Amino acid sequence: MTDSDDRAASQDTREAIMEATFRALRTHGYADLRMRDIGAEMDRTRQVIHYHFDGKYDLMSSFLEYIIEQYEGSVELDADADPRTELDARIDQCLFGPEFTEFTHWDRMKVYHELYTHAQNDGQHREIFDAHYDRIRASIVEVVEDGIEQGVFRDVDAERMGQLITDVIHAARGRRISLGHEDAPAEARTAIDEFILESLYAEPGG
Amino acid sequence: MTDSDDRAASQDTREAIMEATFRALRTHGYADLRMRDIGAEMDRTRQVIHYHFDGKYDLMSSFLEYIIEQYEGSVELDADADPRTELDARIDQCLFGPEFTEFTHWDRMKVYHELYTHAQNDGQHREIFDAHYDRIRASIVEVVEDGIEQGVFRDVDAERMGQLITDVIHAARGRRISLGHEDAPAEARTAIDEFILESLYAEPGG
Repeated sequence: MTDSDDRAASQDTREAIMEATFRALRTHGYADLRMRDIGAEMDRTRQVIHYHFDGKYDLMSSFLEYIIEQYEGSVELDADADPRTELDARIDQCLFGPEFTEFTHWDRMKVYHELYTHAQNDGQHREIFDAHYDRIRASIVEVVEDGIEQGVFRDVDAERMGQLITDVIHAARGRRISLGHEDAPAEARTAIDEFILESLYAEPGG
Repeated sequence: MTDSDDRAASQDTREAIMEATFRALRTHGYADLRMRDIGAEMDRTRQVIHYHFDGKYDLMSSFLEYIIEQYEGSVELDADADPRTELDARIDQCLFGPEFTEFTHWDRMKVYHELYTHAQNDGQHREIFDAHYDRIRASIVEVVEDGIEQGVFRDVDAERMGQLITDVIHAARGRRISLGHEDAPAEARTAIDEFILESLYAEPGG
């Protein structure tokens, strides 16, 4: 095999392990998950897991990065869109998620939120989440700043506004997952519109 | 002993077990916690735990109710306060918590948020949280409704506004705990004021 064949094969194996991890997490949850449960979800020998990852912790860190990458890769932004449309699109993306063929947005978010809570005891996961949270917030702050610059939004503290919207999104997802409030994301979307964005939009000519 | 002595002794024992659970959780976390870890934190024989609780799960459900009760019992509300002052007090209470002699608000919230995330796999805990979340939201909705009735707040959907504020509080606490953002509650407080409450207050004479 050439080097690039090697890399591709290795990439395939990693992906197969990641998808097996998803299936195993869905059955066992994070706290009770063992390496052998992931092995049981794979077609190949589970030695490949040990070849690629140095234990459960190493694997879970990679898995977390894997989920996050899928989200960041999936945001399609339109450079020409006006700030209001753009802001709506970014909020919807975070609240309702992109479509996936296997494991829905909510399957993924369940794992994400479970690991998020565990991050309180875990410096490495905390860093990964912190960086991701930062990028999510920054992507909202960016559009708010654009809108202010173009005069379509009021002159507010864009960082604070971005943080507030990010917090509402996170809480609504968590509520749907932990409490089973199926309509939490849609309700949050309406509340963001009525109570936060309504006052962000500058009066015409104001 | 009389019946009421009996009840008091039993109440003391329960409280001792609950406080031992706190100490054990702080050391071991929820996922790795064993009954014997709680026993190790107590002066008495750990048989009393088994006498009072039917396993770890039963104990954790009682523990969750114990934390929640402390919060609900601690809210002192002033019947004569105007709706703005009252709303501020309720939001501060949820964001910054009451003072405790042993284990701070944040020690308690760490456990609360960890159990909240686990509730996704746990019908009984989910019910307890759901009821608590409902009461928190209702306590905010109530003041918003008062304010609307008295004409000091705009006529908004009070349920939706209460939910939004509750979500922001929850997310800010979670961010402080999981990501170590120490200033998240204070920042959320400012954002609620500037971006949510500002537009809630009715124009004088409006």
